[in-house]
Amino acid sequence: MREMYRHELSAAGEALAALTDDIHVAVVDATTALLEADIDVAERVISQDAKIDAQHELIEKQAFTLLARQAPVAGELRTVVAVLRMVFELARMGDLAAHIAKIARLRYPQMAVPDSLRANVLRMSEVADDMVQVASSVLRTQDLELAETLAGLDEEMDQLRKDQFRILLSDDWDESVEKAIDIALLGRYYERIADHAVAVGGRVIYIITGEAPEGEAWPNA
Amino acid sequence: MREMYRHELSAAGEALAALTDDIHVAVVDATTALLEADIDVAERVISQDAKIDAQHELIEKQAFTLLARQAPVAGELRTVVAVLRMVFELARMGDLAAHIAKIARLRYPQMAVPDSLRANVLRMSEVADDMVQVASSVLRTQDLELAETLAGLDEEMDQLRKDQFRILLSDDWDESVEKAIDIALLGRYYERIADHAVAVGGRVIYIITGEAPEGEAWPNA
Repeated sequence: MREMYRHELSAAGEALAALTDDIHVAVVDATTALLEADIDVAERVISQDAKIDAQHELIEKQAFTLLARQAPVAGELRTVVAVLRMVFELARMGDLAAHIAKIARLRYPQMAVPDSLRANVLRMSEVADDMVQVASSVLRTQDLELAETLAGLDEEMDQLRKDQFRILLSDDWDESVEKAIDIALLGRYYERIADHAVAVGGRVIYIITGEAPEGEAWPNA
Repeated sequence: MREMYRHELSAAGEALAALTDDIHVAVVDATTALLEADIDVAERVISQDAKIDAQHELIEKQAFTLLARQAPVAGELRTVVAVLRMVFELARMGDLAAHIAKIARLRYPQMAVPDSLRANVLRMSEVADDMVQVASSVLRTQDLELAETLAGLDEEMDQLRKDQFRILLSDDWDESVEKAIDIALLGRYYERIADHAVAVGGRVIYIITGEAPEGEAWPNA
């Protein structure tokens, strides 16, 4: 039974994983745009988001066609419904990368991120990108143990967000209110990318085991 | 054809609309908690979010069972897939109301919102709640003209967010960085509630007409 679900997931998983490759590029480029104040890279992330949206639409249509023509049941149905959810989560990750690039563009030629928060934001972006790449591997390999590593990465993200607020609210903070707001929103965007990666991992676990991952506030991950 | 889709939507629409009633209460209560610094109301919103999540899970299961047992085609299939998406959007609106209540709780017994932004935040909450109620009516009545009013309300929300940034970044702003960050995040949460309401309206339009609403960056609304 379990092998059957794995097989059914593999074709759809490959299409979704290909989409995560684009999201990986978007997250890395958005961070470059932000930390290097690179307007060309920012514009590229923003314009490439349309490509991610087009892929989203295409995968959604394919899943819909499969539902309409083949009337799948049991594991296959669970897979198709999960694909519809996952592709939505992935498209949201692309939107969030574009939001990050838009803050870089808004502040250009200034840097949105002050020196005191550079390390924090860089690490946030690395954790977010690691999570995108884990989600990508999980979609390709259906490796449950790998999927479970997403929770630990998400904890690091939460800690980074706490560190960020600590820096923003310390007596040493001597930057503008505008910079503080930018950082708080950037932190929110990276954190949401992480949340969506956790949700994708959770859906793969659900497809394979039929059970929501332990400790997760399913189905609202 | 069109009448058939309307009929198919009505039962599912009623279940979703019942969920929007809970979300309406959550948004109104979260705003009361915020603007009155009322900790009891804040706690109620946060604890009631589990009820919304449980309803989400139940509706998702019902849609899934319908897919598995009845293998719906054409309009009915489109409806069931849209219900799966809409219930997810609605659950996210509940999460966002809980986020607003958590900021009220975090700052209690202080007010999170300074006097200079009270009118702005109050109006944001009213527009968000109006949009929840329009989405609710659209789910119950499948009134396409009503669904189209969501775009205008969303424009008002965007303008309110711009006004908010103008106040936060003006020379007159003499509140703390902490308050500025709280407001920026609260603004983001209300704006996202509005976005989800627009997406729900868009899905209803799609079910009935088979076309994405005009001018919308479908399917990522």
